[in-house]
Amino acid sequence: MSYTNFPSKLLENAVAEFSKLPGIGRKTALRLVLHLLNQPKEDVNLFGSSIIQLRNEIKHCNSCFNISDTSLCDICANPKRDHETICVVESIRDVMSIERTQQFNGIYHVLGGIISPMDGIGPSDLKIEPLIQKVSEGKAKEIILALSTTMEGDTTNFYLYKKLNKFKVPITTIARGVSIGDELEYTDEITLGRSILHRTLFDQNLQ
Amino acid sequence: MSYTNFPSKLLENAVAEFSKLPGIGRKTALRLVLHLLNQPKEDVNLFGSSIIQLRNEIKHCNSCFNISDTSLCDICANPKRDHETICVVESIRDVMSIERTQQFNGIYHVLGGIISPMDGIGPSDLKIEPLIQKVSEGKAKEIILALSTTMEGDTTNFYLYKKLNKFKVPITTIARGVSIGDELEYTDEITLGRSILHRTLFDQNLQ
Ligand SMILES: [Zn+2]
Ligand SMILES: [Zn+2]
Repeated sequence: MSYTNFPSKLLENAVAEFSKLPGIGRKTALRLVLHLLNQPKEDVNLFGSSIIQLRNEIKHCNSCFNISDTSLCDICANPKRDHETICVVESIRDVMSIERTQQFNGIYHVLGGIISPMDGIGPSDLKIEPLIQKVSEGKAKEIILALSTTMEGDTTNFYLYKKLNKFKVPITTIARGVSIGDELEYTDEITLGRSILHRTLFDQNLQ
Repeated sequence: MSYTNFPSKLLENAVAEFSKLPGIGRKTALRLVLHLLNQPKEDVNLFGSSIIQLRNEIKHCNSCFNISDTSLCDICANPKRDHETICVVESIRDVMSIERTQQFNGIYHVLGGIISPMDGIGPSDLKIEPLIQKVSEGKAKEIILALSTTMEGDTTNFYLYKKLNKFKVPITTIARGVSIGDELEYTDEITLGRSILHRTLFDQNLQ
């Protein structure tokens, strides 16, 4: 009998696709797919096409590498932001987290990851060269390293510090109000906002 | 400033769509969407189109109302199954759960839900009439009620019993090896398989 598990190849395909998402097991995938089956066709078409459209049409800001619908993101294009204070973050999620605190009026530089030898991610896989370029051109009066307070975050901090220190621009890190070992995106807004306000010179952490 | 939360309307749309799924909050939705953004375009297109295709092309078996790619599902079309033993279940998920136990060789009847006054679901919202029709035509020699052992399951059991009892066909329920209050789909295969083998006459539960 060909009936192994799924009564429909279409159903099986959709469940297999959902199961590829991180943290989504077969059971959850089936639940989500059956939920979608119960929704109006129009809604499901919108769901599917919103993802396809995003993937095919997404752009990154030419300056800070944040996600953007235009070649320069809203933050980089905003004349009211302080373009000489550059906050270096791992990902788009961290930009969103810091923006929500409403405590930061500078601009960002999104590395697109973090140095992680375990995962085979080295400096050349990240947007580090464009950051060095910016700083070498005298475009920054402060660089805030706002990376997660994990071992990988520390490794990346030290790497950036070594590369950027020669430009004689203050390099700060977010205050360690963020508990050691925490991921930025799970930090509550108040703690995160305060840790940006109370950022310290990176040098101080070396002592 | 127009920058409220999302740096891209496309991103915001996709996250909003994912957030509509049951059990998926904004944070998880964002994580899933950013994961998809990191996948090859081809894979993401497959993901989106598998869902659109499923919703637009899915069929239900004309006989048992299980999901099917054809007008008669693999189970109903299988001459080796016992077509006179009808197992009544709430949903497609339950068909899959019972099939996995490999303890049942009859056919199914998928109600498409359960009587739940709280959720405004009455008998007429379910595929009860076609079941009565089948039984009235003498097509069954046993009806197994395999509904969840919840209050709604019990309500539906009693309703079906009242409607079907006059046809003088044995009406059984799955053995209460399934803990009271449990959903079928969370029951382990061994318990579920055993409870089908040891099904009891519905009458016995009334005493
Ligand atoms: Zn930008
Ligand atoms: Zn069928």
